[in-house]
Formats: sequence, structure tokens, C-alpha cells
Amino acid sequence: MNGWDLLITNIHLATQGQDGIIRDGAIAVRDGRIAWLGPQSELPSSEAGAVRDGQGCWLTPGLVDCHTHIVHAGNRSDEFEARLNGTTYEDIARAGGGIAATVHATRAASEEELLRQSLPRIASLLAEGVTTIEIKSGYGLDLASEAKMLRVARRVAQVLPVRVATTFLGAHALPPEYAGRADAYIDLVCTMIPALAAEGLIDAVDAFCERIGFTAAQTERVFAVAQRHGLPVKLHAEQLSDQDGAALVARYRGLSADHLEHLTEEGMTAMAASGTVAVLLPGAYYFLRDTTPPPVAALRAAGVPMAVATDCNPGTSPLTSLLLAMNMACTLWRLTPEEALAGTTIHAARALGLQDEIGSLATGKRADFALWRIERPADLCYAMGFNPCAGVVNGGVWRHAVVPA
Amino acid sequence: MNGWDLLITNIHLATQGQDGIIRDGAIAVRDGRIAWLGPQSELPSSEAGAVRDGQGCWLTPGLVDCHTHIVHAGNRSDEFEARLNGTTYEDIARAGGGIAATVHATRAASEEELLRQSLPRIASLLAEGVTTIEIKSGYGLDLASEAKMLRVARRVAQVLPVRVATTFLGAHALPPEYAGRADAYIDLVCTMIPALAAEGLIDAVDAFCERIGFTAAQTERVFAVAQRHGLPVKLHAEQLSDQDGAALVARYRGLSADHLEHLTEEGMTAMAASGTVAVLLPGAYYFLRDTTPPPVAALRAAGVPMAVATDCNPGTSPLTSLLLAMNMACTLWRLTPEEALAGTTIHAARALGLQDEIGSLATGKRADFALWRIERPADLCYAMGFNPCAGVVNGGVWRHAVVPA
Ligand SMILES: [Zn+2]
Ligand SMILES: [Zn+2]
Repeated sequence: MNGWDLLITNIHLATQGQDGIIRDGAIAVRDGRIAWLGPQSELPSSEAGAVRDGQGCWLTPGLVDCHTHIVHAGNRSDEFEARLNGTTYEDIARAGGGIAATVHATRAASEEELLRQSLPRIASLLAEGVTTIEIKSGYGLDLASEAKMLRVARRVAQVLPVRVATTFLGAHALPPEYAGRADAYIDLVCTMIPALAAEGLIDAVDAFCERIGFTAAQTERVFAVAQRHGLPVKLHAEQLSDQDGAALVARYRGLSADHLEHLTEEGMTAMAASGTVAVLLPGAYYFLRDTTPPPVAALRAAGVPMAVATDCNPGTSPLTSLLLAMNMACTLWRLTPEEALAGTTIHAARALGLQDEIGSLATGKRADFALWRIERPADLCYAMGFNPCAGVVNGGVWRHAVVPA
Repeated sequence: MNGWDLLITNIHLATQGQDGIIRDGAIAVRDGRIAWLGPQSELPSSEAGAVRDGQGCWLTPGLVDCHTHIVHAGNRSDEFEARLNGTTYEDIARAGGGIAATVHATRAASEEELLRQSLPRIASLLAEGVTTIEIKSGYGLDLASEAKMLRVARRVAQVLPVRVATTFLGAHALPPEYAGRADAYIDLVCTMIPALAAEGLIDAVDAFCERIGFTAAQTERVFAVAQRHGLPVKLHAEQLSDQDGAALVARYRGLSADHLEHLTEEGMTAMAASGTVAVLLPGAYYFLRDTTPPPVAALRAAGVPMAVATDCNPGTSPLTSLLLAMNMACTLWRLTPEEALAGTTIHAARALGLQDEIGSLATGKRADFALWRIERPADLCYAMGFNPCAGVVNGGVWRHAVVPA
């Protein structure tokens, strides 16, 4: 026992781990990790470099946004406005809009510019107690542009207090220069994986398996290459239709299957067997006015862990509040507040393969916490557009709530 | 021409008035009012006490949240959680929950405590460029408690940089001590009006006309007393069912009819004739998972001005983001971004009878603005959970975006 770097007293802890709820507790940090936690009455005497009075706040693990496309250039508010004024999706696509517009803007942006545009969105997440985010590529769709996106994702973690998990999503959409040649583009994607992995830019590999995306066979080619390079996989699955994507990603022992509005019984059974997390993305459901919810009650019954994420992207979910995603999951899909909080902590960590490091409060884990000025944990899901974050500890370092510049 | 107190250059203005959009403009303030606005190329030479470079931001009128119940004690996240865990509304009501819980907590709170609990919610609105809010009473339901709520509402304007319009909503719900005696309670409400008006606590009078609220006849008794005391009226109308409330409030030349999901053709025609504003409250619609939208297209066609507000309240709309209400109005109800912005500026001002003072940028009006770091005004409606507010001017005084403490 060499003393602690930081001790926070006078808090209630929602550990999301085996300690459950600890009222009137304290937590201690050493070397960036949790050194002790428990009821304050059992606090061992030890020296601490810094002691903070938590003033009766609640402490949760730092929130984890496990599915974002938050690095991108431009936005698509012009299309949002045009649609509300009566322009059709077809007209917009014909005018070069939709995902093509974001690909065009992202390819054109310098690395600096891409970082500059992405930081305020990320800061908005961090202000609400988020300490880890996943960032996908997928608006570059050529080697240089995908590498640029992933390098920006890595740089985010250098300029803001956040852990970043990168996901290579080359198989997101068909770039214009490959129109009508999806298999040839998948060949290219398969060659990008070793190149980007060699640069240390990929933590996981993802694809968009959908009628308007790639087929299950094309997805499997990407997964096979990922597997050869020791990279875990995840999948945009069953959002708009059933493509057997959940069963496919489960077969590869994937980290997660994401969206899942059209998930079948078979897909769910496969996910339960493989331990694949269901990542629920209510922002896109809300923004697209979708009416088919994912089968939450069945997922619950099957014991599939459910995560909740923003899916932050310019086309279908321009959402930079994970608390609002939690509210949507409860309001629109009837998750309990307890499930929604597990969905942005321990299960979100599992969706990134990081459940041994982050996502719950337990000795030995990374000291990533958020402190909340609330009466009870359910307040995090109940309020809409209110940020009760009173402080953040990331990697053992105390920070006041990070606000966008 | 004696010079200006404040000049903001290098901005685009969305005036919401007869000047429409002014690109590359400037605005000048003297004595708390707009002294000049126009294209920067036409800026007259004048001395200014302070000059600020708007850095290409957009300037809009300060936003107006024209329907809130934001002063209240306690929240109802416990009921939110209980319902998601399977408890019925009936069980909650039997246990003293629902509006009765908020009345109980609000009556029990001291004036100081009520203010203390309300300020963070109001600060959350102000951080997003809101400069005027309406605050209703209606959780006191006796003279002393209603007076306490309204005094707190007045004090809000002394401790935060915001204009407050107070609305007496004694006819919000039947207090427990009047169970089964609604007409007797309306007698009491009618005596409260002169008492509270004499203290200068009432800017307008409202009621909840609904099967679960008060009848049209009871509402009219309240309106008659309001009229005798020269107080304008407004009404919670046609939210859950058609009660002919819109026609009633129009007959009293009411400022606004609010909610309106079940508005009829006749009600709409009456509102159009009387100039009564339709205040749309998408937060409650979303939170209650309602499926009957207000007749937006018909209101548009009839030329009824539409406002958008948060309806911030603990039971049906715990919403403290007016930008999110704008997004909901567009996403869920297909308002255009232009309509949503008019709905939180000039039409919201009209719903408070303040359209000659605030709600648009025009010489002579109050210098209440919000400055936004956005590419185009539609960005305010498109993003979810992102606050691009770069600064606020309230009554001619420059402030950085106000963040909750
Ligand atoms: Zn996605
Ligand atoms: Zn209301």
C-alpha cells in the first residue's frame, strides 16, 4: 500500500459490476487504475495525493459510445431541409447527395480539416461523461482516405481526454468509381485491411450488410481477411431487412451486431451462443421515423447483452448526446433505465472487446468515471437535453465536465 | 446619432422580420435596443463602446420558450423507471404519484428551495440561446403555493439573464382537498386571479381543458375573470381529445392554444380569425409515445402562426433543450426548419403578446440575440444534442453561452 493518487469520498456508486450499487461510498485511484472502492465506512486509512468531496453525487463508469461515424466532413442539414420542403430521396441522390456527399467532402478534406470539424462533435459527447468512443472509417472508400479517417480517429485521443477504439468500415458503401462492380471493390477492401493494420490503425473490422449495402457473401470475404489478421469483427446487421447478418457475425464470434430492427429468432440464438453484443441505435430509428423496433423483450429473454450508442453520422443520426440515446432507448423501445445504463457502460465496453479494462467500477480496472449531480441513476435516462455531469475522471485524471469550445 | 453601445460585425442575420436573411451583415445596439442592422457594406460610421467580430457566425433573435412548467420541485424519474419495469399508471396514481407527487413536493418546498431546484433546468435552456421563457404556475393549487411559484418565476429573471413571462395556471389539476368538487375549486381559482394580479405576478391566465382536467364551462369561468382584470388568456387545448378548447380560447381572443393534437377544422378556423397562435409541444408527444400529430399541414394552409416550445414539466416532457424541441417538430411533425425557427422566435413572442418587443431583429426591438457557430440556420434543427451557441446578447448585454453550474 503506497498511498493513492486520487480519492473521491461522499458518493454513491453504480458500479455496473459485481458490487452493484454502493451508497455512501468512496473510490480510490492509483497509477490510473481503481485501487479501492466500497462503503466509506470501510475506507482503509491511506495517504492520497488529492481528495475530492463528491458532495453526494452518483459515480458511474465513464460512458462508452460504442458505435459512431463521428469523424466526417460536412453535414447534411441541407438535405434534411430539402426533404422537409418536399424534395424526394431520389432527387437528392441524383444531385449527388446522400452518403456520396459525405464521401466527397471527407475525401476532399485535409487531415487537419477533418480533425477540426470532428472535434466539437466529440467534445459534445465528452461533456456528458463519455470517456471512450468507437470511431468508424467508411467515408473514404479508398486506401488513402480510409487511412486519413483512421489517423484522425487516433489523433482525437491525443487532443481530447478520451479513449478511442477504431473500426475499419471500408465495406460501408460502394464508391462512385466502382459503380456496378461491388465484388471488385470488396477485393480492394480486402487489400486495405493488412495495409491499415500494419499501421496500427484498426482495432476491429465492420461492414454494412444490407440490400443497399453489401451481400452476406461479400461481408464474409471481408471477415475472413480480418480473421486472418487477428482482428475482431462486428456488423451493421438487419437494420432495414433480414440478411442473416447476425448469424454471420456470430459465426465469426463477432464483438457485436448493430441495429437489428429486423433480427430473427435464428440470428438471436446465434448471438446468444457466441456472446455477440446487440448494439441498439435508437437515434437512427428516431431520425428516420422507423416503426419496427428491435426485439428488445426477446433479446432480454435470450440473455443477449444490449448496448446503446449514438450511431453519430450525418445522414441518419446526427446525434451527439449519449444521454439522449439512452432516453430514446427507454422511451421508444422500453429498455429499463438500468438496462440503458448497462448499455452505455459494461455492455458497450464488451461490444469493443474492452470489458476487462473499462465499463464497470472494480479494482484493477481503468479509472474512467463520470460524476453526476442526480438523485438516482434513472435520472440519466429520464431527462431530455439536460446534462447533470459534475466531473469526469479519465485514466485517473480528474477533469471538470468537458464542454465544447 | 450618439454612438452605439455594442456593434457586432461579420455575421449573417436570420432576422425573422421583414429584412429576411442578411448575409455579411452587422448589428448595432444602443440603450438595450437594436439601433441598426443591415449589410456590413452599408454600415454607417459611428462610434461603438464595444465591437465584436462575429467570425462568420449566424445571428438569430434570442430564442423564446413560450410554454414551460419549469418551476417545480422534485422530478418523476422514479415513476418513469417504475413504468418501464411494468408498474401501471393506475398503481402509480394509487401510490400518490403523477401530478399529485409534484404538487406535494412543490407545496412542501420553500421559495428558496424551489428556486434552487429550478435554476439548473433554466440554465440548460439559456445555454442554447434562449433569452425569454414563459413559466406557468399550477403545481401549487392554493393561493399561497401558487403565489410562491409565481414569485420564484419572477426571481428567476433577477438571478439569470432571461426575460420571464408568468402565466397563472391555477386550473391545472384538481388538488386532493377538492376531490369531487371541481366547481368549488374553480371558485377558488377565480378568487386567486385578482389577488395574484394585484401583486403583479400574472402576465397571462391559462387552464387545462380536458376530460382529465376542467370542462369548457369551468375554463370559461376562469377566462371571464381574467378578462375582467385585463389579463390575456391561453389554453391547454385538444391534447388528448377534442373539447372545443381552441374555439373557446379564440372567442376570448387568446394569445395561444397549446398542444392541439386533436384540433378540429372549426377550432382552426376560429384561431385563424382571432390571430391565436398554435403552440406545438413535441416533447410531450415524444415522451408519451403519442401517435396523433397536430394538423401541421392544415395549420400551415390556414395561416395559423405555429410556435414550438419545450413544455418542460416533470410528468410528460422533462425536456430542457429548445433546440431538441425544434428537431422533434421537424422530425416527428414535418415542420420545415424555417418554420421551427420562426416557432421559437417571432411566433413564440406572439404567443406571449411580446411580438412588438422581441422575437425578430428590427430596429427599435429589444437587443436579445443568439450567435451560432453553424453553416446555415437549418443546422439548429438538424443536429440532436449539439449546442452550437457561441454567445448571447440579452437586453444589449453580451454574454458567453450560459452553461449550467
Ligand atoms: Zn453505423
Ligand atoms: Zn403545459
